[in-house]
Amino acid sequence: MAKRLKHSILVLNGPNLNLLGTREPEVYGRDTLADIAAGLERRGAEIGLGIDFQQWNGEGEMVTAIQAARGTRAGIIINPAAYTHTSIALLDALLAVELPVIEVHLSNPHKREDYRHKSYVSRMAQGVICGFGSLGYYLALDAMSHILDVSPAK
Amino acid sequence: MAKRLKHSILVLNGPNLNLLGTREPEVYGRDTLADIAAGLERRGAEIGLGIDFQQWNGEGEMVTAIQAARGTRAGIIINPAAYTHTSIALLDALLAVELPVIEVHLSNPHKREDYRHKSYVSRMAQGVICGFGSLGYYLALDAMSHILDVSPAK
Amino acid sequence: MAKRLKHSILVLNGPNLNLLGTREPEVYGRDTLADIAAGLERRGAEIGLGIDFQQWNGEGEMVTAIQAARGTRAGIIINPAAYTHTSIALLDALLAVELPVIEVHLSNPHKREDYRHKSYVSRMAQGVICGFGSLGYYLALDAMSHILDVSPAK
Amino acid sequence: MAKRLKHSILVLNGPNLNLLGTREPEVYGRDTLADIAAGLERRGAEIGLGIDFQQWNGEGEMVTAIQAARGTRAGIIINPAAYTHTSIALLDALLAVELPVIEVHLSNPHKREDYRHKSYVSRMAQGVICGFGSLGYYLALDAMSHILDVSPAK
Amino acid sequence: MAKRLKHSILVLNGPNLNLLGTREPEVYGRDTLADIAAGLERRGAEIGLGIDFQQWNGEGEMVTAIQAARGTRAGIIINPAAYTHTSIALLDALLAVELPVIEVHLSNPHKREDYRHKSYVSRMAQGVICGFGSLGYYLALDAMSHILDVSPAK
Amino acid sequence: MAKRLKHSILVLNGPNLNLLGTREPEVYGRDTLADIAAGLERRGAEIGLGIDFQQWNGEGEMVTAIQAARGTRAGIIINPAAYTHTSIALLDALLAVELPVIEVHLSNPHKREDYRHKSYVSRMAQGVICGFGSLGYYLALDAMSHILDVSPAK
Amino acid sequence: MAKRLKHSILVLNGPNLNLLGTREPEVYGRDTLADIAAGLERRGAEIGLGIDFQQWNGEGEMVTAIQAARGTRAGIIINPAAYTHTSIALLDALLAVELPVIEVHLSNPHKREDYRHKSYVSRMAQGVICGFGSLGYYLALDAMSHILDVSPAK
Amino acid sequence: MAKRLKHSILVLNGPNLNLLGTREPEVYGRDTLADIAAGLERRGAEIGLGIDFQQWNGEGEMVTAIQAARGTRAGIIINPAAYTHTSIALLDALLAVELPVIEVHLSNPHKREDYRHKSYVSRMAQGVICGFGSLGYYLALDAMSHILDVSPAK
Amino acid sequence: MAKRLKHSILVLNGPNLNLLGTREPEVYGRDTLADIAAGLERRGAEIGLGIDFQQWNGEGEMVTAIQAARGTRAGIIINPAAYTHTSIALLDALLAVELPVIEVHLSNPHKREDYRHKSYVSRMAQGVICGFGSLGYYLALDAMSHILDVSPAK
Amino acid sequence: MAKRLKHSILVLNGPNLNLLGTREPEVYGRDTLADIAAGLERRGAEIGLGIDFQQWNGEGEMVTAIQAARGTRAGIIINPAAYTHTSIALLDALLAVELPVIEVHLSNPHKREDYRHKSYVSRMAQGVICGFGSLGYYLALDAMSHILDVSPAK
Amino acid sequence: MAKRLKHSILVLNGPNLNLLGTREPEVYGRDTLADIAAGLERRGAEIGLGIDFQQWNGEGEMVTAIQAARGTRAGIIINPAAYTHTSIALLDALLAVELPVIEVHLSNPHKREDYRHKSYVSRMAQGVICGFGSLGYYLALDAMSHILDVSPAK
Amino acid sequence: MAKRLKHSILVLNGPNLNLLGTREPEVYGRDTLADIAAGLERRGAEIGLGIDFQQWNGEGEMVTAIQAARGTRAGIIINPAAYTHTSIALLDALLAVELPVIEVHLSNPHKREDYRHKSYVSRMAQGVICGFGSLGYYLALDAMSHILDVSPAK
Repeated sequence: MAKRLKHSILVLNGPNLNLLGTREPEVYGRDTLADIAAGLERRGAEIGLGIDFQQWNGEGEMVTAIQAARGTRAGIIINPAAYTHTSIALLDALLAVELPVIEVHLSNPHKREDYRHKSYVSRMAQGVICGFGSLGYYLALDAMSHILDVSPAK
Repeated sequence: MAKRLKHSILVLNGPNLNLLGTREPEVYGRDTLADIAAGLERRGAEIGLGIDFQQWNGEGEMVTAIQAARGTRAGIIINPAAYTHTSIALLDALLAVELPVIEVHLSNPHKREDYRHKSYVSRMAQGVICGFGSLGYYLALDAMSHILDVSPAK
Repeated sequence: MAKRLKHSILVLNGPNLNLLGTREPEVYGRDTLADIAAGLERRGAEIGLGIDFQQWNGEGEMVTAIQAARGTRAGIIINPAAYTHTSIALLDALLAVELPVIEVHLSNPHKREDYRHKSYVSRMAQGVICGFGSLGYYLALDAMSHILDVSPAK
Repeated sequence: MAKRLKHSILVLNGPNLNLLGTREPEVYGRDTLADIAAGLERRGAEIGLGIDFQQWNGEGEMVTAIQAARGTRAGIIINPAAYTHTSIALLDALLAVELPVIEVHLSNPHKREDYRHKSYVSRMAQGVICGFGSLGYYLALDAMSHILDVSPAK
Repeated sequence: MAKRLKHSILVLNGPNLNLLGTREPEVYGRDTLADIAAGLERRGAEIGLGIDFQQWNGEGEMVTAIQAARGTRAGIIINPAAYTHTSIALLDALLAVELPVIEVHLSNPHKREDYRHKSYVSRMAQGVICGFGSLGYYLALDAMSHILDVSPAK
Repeated sequence: MAKRLKHSILVLNGPNLNLLGTREPEVYGRDTLADIAAGLERRGAEIGLGIDFQQWNGEGEMVTAIQAARGTRAGIIINPAAYTHTSIALLDALLAVELPVIEVHLSNPHKREDYRHKSYVSRMAQGVICGFGSLGYYLALDAMSHILDVSPAK
Repeated sequence: MAKRLKHSILVLNGPNLNLLGTREPEVYGRDTLADIAAGLERRGAEIGLGIDFQQWNGEGEMVTAIQAARGTRAGIIINPAAYTHTSIALLDALLAVELPVIEVHLSNPHKREDYRHKSYVSRMAQGVICGFGSLGYYLALDAMSHILDVSPAK
Repeated sequence: MAKRLKHSILVLNGPNLNLLGTREPEVYGRDTLADIAAGLERRGAEIGLGIDFQQWNGEGEMVTAIQAARGTRAGIIINPAAYTHTSIALLDALLAVELPVIEVHLSNPHKREDYRHKSYVSRMAQGVICGFGSLGYYLALDAMSHILDVSPAK
Repeated sequence: MAKRLKHSILVLNGPNLNLLGTREPEVYGRDTLADIAAGLERRGAEIGLGIDFQQWNGEGEMVTAIQAARGTRAGIIINPAAYTHTSIALLDALLAVELPVIEVHLSNPHKREDYRHKSYVSRMAQGVICGFGSLGYYLALDAMSHILDVSPAK
Repeated sequence: MAKRLKHSILVLNGPNLNLLGTREPEVYGRDTLADIAAGLERRGAEIGLGIDFQQWNGEGEMVTAIQAARGTRAGIIINPAAYTHTSIALLDALLAVELPVIEVHLSNPHKREDYRHKSYVSRMAQGVICGFGSLGYYLALDAMSHILDVSPAK
Repeated sequence: MAKRLKHSILVLNGPNLNLLGTREPEVYGRDTLADIAAGLERRGAEIGLGIDFQQWNGEGEMVTAIQAARGTRAGIIINPAAYTHTSIALLDALLAVELPVIEVHLSNPHKREDYRHKSYVSRMAQGVICGFGSLGYYLALDAMSHILDVSPAK
Repeated sequence: MAKRLKHSILVLNGPNLNLLGTREPEVYGRDTLADIAAGLERRGAEIGLGIDFQQWNGEGEMVTAIQAARGTRAGIIINPAAYTHTSIALLDALLAVELPVIEVHLSNPHKREDYRHKSYVSRMAQGVICGFGSLGYYLALDAMSHILDVSPAK
């Protein structure tokens, strides 16, 4: 229940990320999503940030999760996966909740196919971190803690 | 149960519209979606049209809702929100149910970003009303009542 | 002369609309432009709005008509017809007169050729209504009366 | 339960295909999706292939269904319907499960609107069959049986 | 007044063509527009077709001239000059009057700048003749006489 | 052999035109290519122009035919059919022979699919005549006779 | 001579397919075009369909072969190879003969370079089968036999 | 009448410029078009150049005004306003009169919307001055006086 | 040293402009860059503006020159030559120094190749003058003196 | 017959090159194709390379010629002329024969029309030489002799 | 000199970044580039990584700096500023030195103008961090230390 | 000093070519740029052409080097490397010096990424040689010697 406090953040993962660690480990690393969740919770505990870690395959469920963060979370770290490139609904939801947002990608989309170069979410994210595998989540958590330090809500 | 009659219509709302009235009220007005639903039901009662008012964040749920209108509703008023610009599935569902469709938007998408200018749904809608805030729903209801008056199913 | 009061509005029609009712009636309906003018005047009289109804084939004449509405009309309902897609001059004139503007189209341009999907006028119109045939003018008049109710000039 | 064996395949259908047989039968034929499922099961029984036949309107549910096929199905026949043209998430899911995939369409998308010419799924499908109505599913089943015959898992 | 009969045709010329014969004669020839009008009238007299020859610099005046041809002329030969490439209003007027239309250009626009390659009028013209200088008008008149011979209205 | 004189012209027809008169006569008319050849020869005899009438399905054969016209024919009337839109080789051949060229099409390509709007041949043709069915060949012959009258080779 | 009956079909192969089986067998398989012809004739004999199997490197020769099928063949299976993407002449020929057409490709063009994604032939083919190697021809033959069964000409 | 001499110039203004000074003065300045006309006449008088100052809302009227300058004016300063971006007719008229032309804009169109970046008139203007408000007219007059000094007509 | 005062301006010239007067004089005039520098200094002396006149072939050197103008110059007249179309670094430098900027071109880029129509610098310049040859620099100096007169820094 | 040895190469020329030397000699030079063939044979004889010199107007014939080089020639020098820009069939044939390929053009296509900038053949050629007239063939022969020197087949 | 060891990294900054801290501090923060250099050196000292911190306005100088890092630095952190979007030379240099590369931007380019959305450098960078102001450099240093930890050279 | 004679040529190399021979030798060969310079000087000495061999990483330095060749060199062989695709300044410099220019590339850009297909320099080069590694320089030198032989300046 402590997670419902202002000082927890939402870490939201998009479609197919539940397969992490079991699919092409030489590309995406051997960490599973559960490993990342556990690691972020440890790191979060050290710096006083609760972690609400979720993964959804559906665009609508992700929209709902973002809406639920309004008033209950202090910020959002999002890895929208494939929806990065196709979802305006995620963009609208993030615009509506008015929280700091950091976008994370395991790989660097700019090194992949052209249709992965377009991002709707990046149009409103405060920052983007991509290409560092699971390390990217920890860097995002560090960045989020700096951002929240300077916010009046601290 | 009266709503299941031929003379009720489906008013279907897309992702993030559940936040209406609480987000950027100076842009979208202070009416909540519940206010609009209540207002439409009052107006509908006066002109003998039941209102089946729904809101979904998911594209699939919206497709299912449209399909369910076949044979149970006389027409559809739809505000597809972000799916306006990305969903061919909604377009296909609307094509399949063969009912009169009116598209409504609270704001005027032509005054916003370029990626909001394209609409799949508009390709099959009989009419489009945008830019009048919640008033647009009432105008759509008036238009729908005219359209149904001249249909042989009346 | 009463029309010159603040509570009259300009209803401005673009090229070829003078042929309405006599051309492809199965598409555009059997109402002539004179029928619509008469109907709007009746409706306007009920709600206390005078109607200044005009039709021009020339872009320059339409610009002049819009300019003349500044200080003499309370709002503009415009069906720019073909100039919708090609005239920046109309857009500039509408921007200059600083009145509420509602754009009306008899048919739904999104269901027609690609070059009819672009609209300059829509970039500044408060609202757009399309696809309802002559009914669209009445809906626009209703919307305009609501907009003027909340204006300080009322 | 026998279906959970390696020698069953997933036949996955996208949005609006549940309306098959009841909508525009002169275009799509009079077979319902249940008819096709039954027919494929009969044909599958003859050649020793179980059929896991599913239909979903939601993109997320389809992603989940594909993921569930990993390790439990020998191959996937997919008719993504409208998601063919808009879903990178389906493409990513299919890439992740590393199974042979055959794409089927009832009609020939190349004979329809331009926005139906682009396919994300086709970029990874081994083969594509379109334009033969429900017969396409049977052709795909024949093709899949040939593909599996030459696989070491047989 | 004889011209008002069914067997006269409108020959409509667009902006700047009144300068013909006095501007770049090595490109456009030395015939003035009056020379062409006189020649066409002589030729028309021989074959029993009255000629209503007009030139306008304004788009609106050309629309009005086209509309006036409905019911009074048997066909239209049009050299829209610069409006060829920019006017949807001319296209709509020509669509509305439902007469056979032949488009003429003195030079071949395909050999000129790119912005002269697009033509709205060509989308509805029955035939196009370009590149023959003033001779093109005579060829168009011959073609028109053939077209009218086979029409039931004759 | 008289045709080999300077005052004969090549009338060159592209792929599928040999089917003329037997395919979609309501669109293309009932004249066969042989009818057109005979008609042109009669007309040509009256005005002293021999006609070398050919049809080929192959792009290379058409290039060869054009090359053979150099020094043996006074001009070329060409209906390149489908090669209009795809063949740079025909364009190069026509550029090389340095004869007056008139391009003819039975229908108006601008009223057909987008991929029929581009023409390589039109970039060098002196004139283009399209949309008049078989009449277009006769108009082209008239135009060619005018062009040759003013040439020093006469 | 039996092949000249209504119940034989044309199997037409485009440029470079004569190299099949000898070039990149790991991609295209070890079957030569002769193997496929023989296999199709055996299968055709079982179901009562004669096979007229041809291969041409030239676009014009393929057009001629298609024309010759009119009135002598019951349908066409075509693998246009490279001409798939560049030939409007093949499209026109197929449109003219008014026979059922099935398009076959050995590989899946959507998995190759972008310039292989466009197909003119697919715009009129009843169905398309690609990505199954030589098996695709047999699937196409099965599909063709179904199509001919339901035709009134049977 | 002195203005009809060779040493007067046409200063031609396009649609909506008659509103100058009364609309958004913080953007366009407080000078009215009459102020500018008067100022230019004073400056012109000093340097011996008569000023023929005109404003039109119609494209056709502007074309006519340009044509009338041939032989009666020594040069043209034009502010085409919205027609800058849409009118090829103005371009053609300016090409025809063969006078030095200077294009003036009050604001810098390159700093405004994309559709204001394209200019047909600039393709033939000797020079362009934009972004200096009403000062631009005076700069243009200075530039014109330099240009005319070096002309043989001086 | 007087040039280092607030009332001097930077006149910055891009690559290849050092060749002015020696290359294509019929196009660019016979004035060398030194002539222009001298002329501007004379004119500047009359109106109390020092001139810091520079030319660089390197993009980096131009960026450095612009940065050095911050706090030492009152404005910048820039002819970026080829970098007009390719350099975002120049644009960023100009944005950073927060001085009034006027862009000059000897010729009118709109009359040249397409890749010369795009300008990054124009996106921030207060004004643009092009097509007047070296005269353009003097017009720009006049304009700059007007701009500085009305600035509070004067 | 000696030419059939491994150490002969195919020099293949596309449509209209048979006109070389007789058409626009100031552009393409006065060498005929026969002159070039003779020169290459002399040069080839010196360095021990037989020359199989061919020219075809037809795309299919060129494909066939390339196929025939497999196993009989050591390399291919090709000037595809107009087919450079339109033929995927040539590209496929060159890919199939697996020989070193050098592409030659007499002129520099980058200095000509835009539609001559795209090359399918260049996508697989080892090297490209253009703009040197007939000299380009000799340079290509030198380059080919170097390439073959380092091949194991030597 | 210790910096020349394998365990130092190059931190390379592009044009205009030398103005950091003095220009728009509310956007880019108050840290100067010297502050960042000092901070990175402190952090680097803690983790045993020397910092070679450079800034250049010229593209060529940046290429040279990257080349110098080969064999002397263990990795590169680069903020290419405006050259991100226009420089292929930087991309080639980075490809040539074969070191791990992390791209940093102070702001999020996806939230700025469209021409800042394209990045050449991102095509080869292992990771990208943007939008966190000067904090981004520290995150990049952390990420680099992780990357080097797992390298065999450690 | 002999190099300053008319019969020496400039061989100018762009960014990163100084790494030649040490980077990806399996792609670019083992020759260093010094090896090529030495080889060209030997070959040049044989045919009486001095070689001025330069390499620069900076665009501005390359522009300056080209300018310096005017009046001192007889021709230019240029390998612009990455600047091929991005530099209009190089194109302008080459246009200004009015010398014969041959463009050389080690690899064939048409076989690489799309953004390497566009070349500004090719628009003015007399000839282009690509794909032959260091051999290309020798072929270019041969071609240059032929070009200079036929020039009147020889």
